[in-house]
Amino acid sequence: MKQRVVAFGGGHGLSASLRALRRCAPELDLDITAVVTVGDDGGSSGRLRLERGALPPGDLRQALAALAADEAGTRRSAELFQHRFAGGGPRPDPLAGHAVGNLVLCGLMELLGDPVAALDHAAAMLGAVGRVLPMACQPVGIEARVRGADPRRPSAVQTVRGQHAVAVTDGRVESVRLAPEGPSACPQAVAAVREADWLVFGPGSWYTSVIPHLLVPELAAAMVASPARRLVTLNLANEAETLGLSLADHLAALGWYLPGLTVDVVLADGKAVGDPEPVHRAAESLGARLVLAPVAVPDGGPQHDPAALGAALVPLLGADR
Amino acid sequence: MKQRVVAFGGGHGLSASLRALRRCAPELDLDITAVVTVGDDGGSSGRLRLERGALPPGDLRQALAALAADEAGTRRSAELFQHRFAGGGPRPDPLAGHAVGNLVLCGLMELLGDPVAALDHAAAMLGAVGRVLPMACQPVGIEARVRGADPRRPSAVQTVRGQHAVAVTDGRVESVRLAPEGPSACPQAVAAVREADWLVFGPGSWYTSVIPHLLVPELAAAMVASPARRLVTLNLANEAETLGLSLADHLAALGWYLPGLTVDVVLADGKAVGDPEPVHRAAESLGARLVLAPVAVPDGGPQHDPAALGAALVPLLGADR
Repeated sequence: MKQRVVAFGGGHGLSASLRALRRCAPELDLDITAVVTVGDDGGSSGRLRLERGALPPGDLRQALAALAADEAGTRRSAELFQHRFAGGGPRPDPLAGHAVGNLVLCGLMELLGDPVAALDHAAAMLGAVGRVLPMACQPVGIEARVRGADPRRPSAVQTVRGQHAVAVTDGRVESVRLAPEGPSACPQAVAAVREADWLVFGPGSWYTSVIPHLLVPELAAAMVASPARRLVTLNLANEAETLGLSLADHLAALGWYLPGLTVDVVLADGKAVGDPEPVHRAAESLGARLVLAPVAVPDGGPQHDPAALGAALVPLLGADR
Repeated sequence: MKQRVVAFGGGHGLSASLRALRRCAPELDLDITAVVTVGDDGGSSGRLRLERGALPPGDLRQALAALAADEAGTRRSAELFQHRFAGGGPRPDPLAGHAVGNLVLCGLMELLGDPVAALDHAAAMLGAVGRVLPMACQPVGIEARVRGADPRRPSAVQTVRGQHAVAVTDGRVESVRLAPEGPSACPQAVAAVREADWLVFGPGSWYTSVIPHLLVPELAAAMVASPARRLVTLNLANEAETLGLSLADHLAALGWYLPGLTVDVVLADGKAVGDPEPVHRAAESLGARLVLAPVAVPDGGPQHDPAALGAALVPLLGADR
């Protein structure tokens, strides 16, 4: 029987998670659904959101590309989706920097009037081995309270607005919220969570790609109520937005933002963890066991290697309850 | 054995021709290749050509959409290709008016560095029942000598530059040329002409979509040398650019611009022809017989009906030599 896995995240981290999951899919007979943040306001997505009111398509596009069928034609279509128009010519060039897939997704959403139908069609164009859904059907805003965002006033706390600004802030993020708070969830995402066998959180930008899912009330309620087991994949290194946050703090943040959340398994890379004791304790306080496995790319960079992550996931997702 | 048909044209006329040909394809076992003008400098295509130096994609996109497989998914992808981004919002909107397929084709050409590879991939995305090729791999300019382009000087002749300006001119087009003259042909288009069983010209904007093919030297030489039979489908009404040009004049223009061209069949709508005698004589002087058939849309508009045109083409293309 199919095991239904729902993976939450945003950009590169979710992409790594999906590439790992699809490697386990044949062995474990997985049915993969990606649920993607829609808070992006930077780059190509930010322009499309500002100019057209579009659901920011960039993270959705990356998830689709990660699930594209491994055949010559669909691989090329995925490459097309990911291709960014070059710029720098002598004339003003309104397309420069846009990923082609972002424009395709915007066009589909405008044509079909429904982001889920648009994503399902785009998935079919890529022969995707899973479904990609937005966490909400409207763009959301992300804001953070940040200490020392202004380096001249290192102890002052101020509000930083917008996913991009939060992600690159110089200060320490103390808390994060959606603005306006409590957006409606995408109904199909809620249904997927309800029917899931596994919920997989991370890796990814913790405050701007992982925690936002916990801040969508219907989605959060479904996570807590779902009979699914829950797995958290921890990051390999901190980003600007998680400066000063230990891996144990990452886990604690999940419990802070969604108090009812229990977790079954926390997967982390031994090298990134260092002394496992605090992470082990933080996992335990969510109800989870900690599993250490080498999941980084071979060159030692702070990216998850889809093959290694997939290999680590097989025994975890395949274990009997 | 497959009959290889090469259809020449530009936008809507070529689209009607291709939609008719694909209806004959199963009965006659046709292998369809569209060869498309690349002179467009108006609208979305004109902007992409100006801003990005792109091969104007609009007519190529229309030909692809006309050949898209008749299945739910590919029909929707064709609809997406044809969808134009809405505009008119409160903010400047650089995407407004662009057809999504134009952006996809530009992206593919940039990604793959080869317009033919780009078109073949786009054709695969749409499950196209034929191939679409550009007449040249570089954009071409179209210029016309026009009498009375300036209504204040009705007898003066001046040069009008650009396909769009020629297509909508107020005066009478006296002659047309490419600028610069003699562009290189797309090699795959030349090869298709050499190996064709039928070459099909028109319907379409005569000066800006049909005759330009005769002005590409290698393509013209291949047309004359090809063992293929040749069929011309005449238009149903004049456009601005052919004001004052009779249907007999349309045929004479083909001989004028490509003196070695002989034609086997001229297909025209009896109602559009009126007195058939001058058209009959003009056809004869190209070596062709004139066939009259009702090929217009049922509402009497000046558009070809793909079903009616297809029905008229079957006995012509299926006849023994």
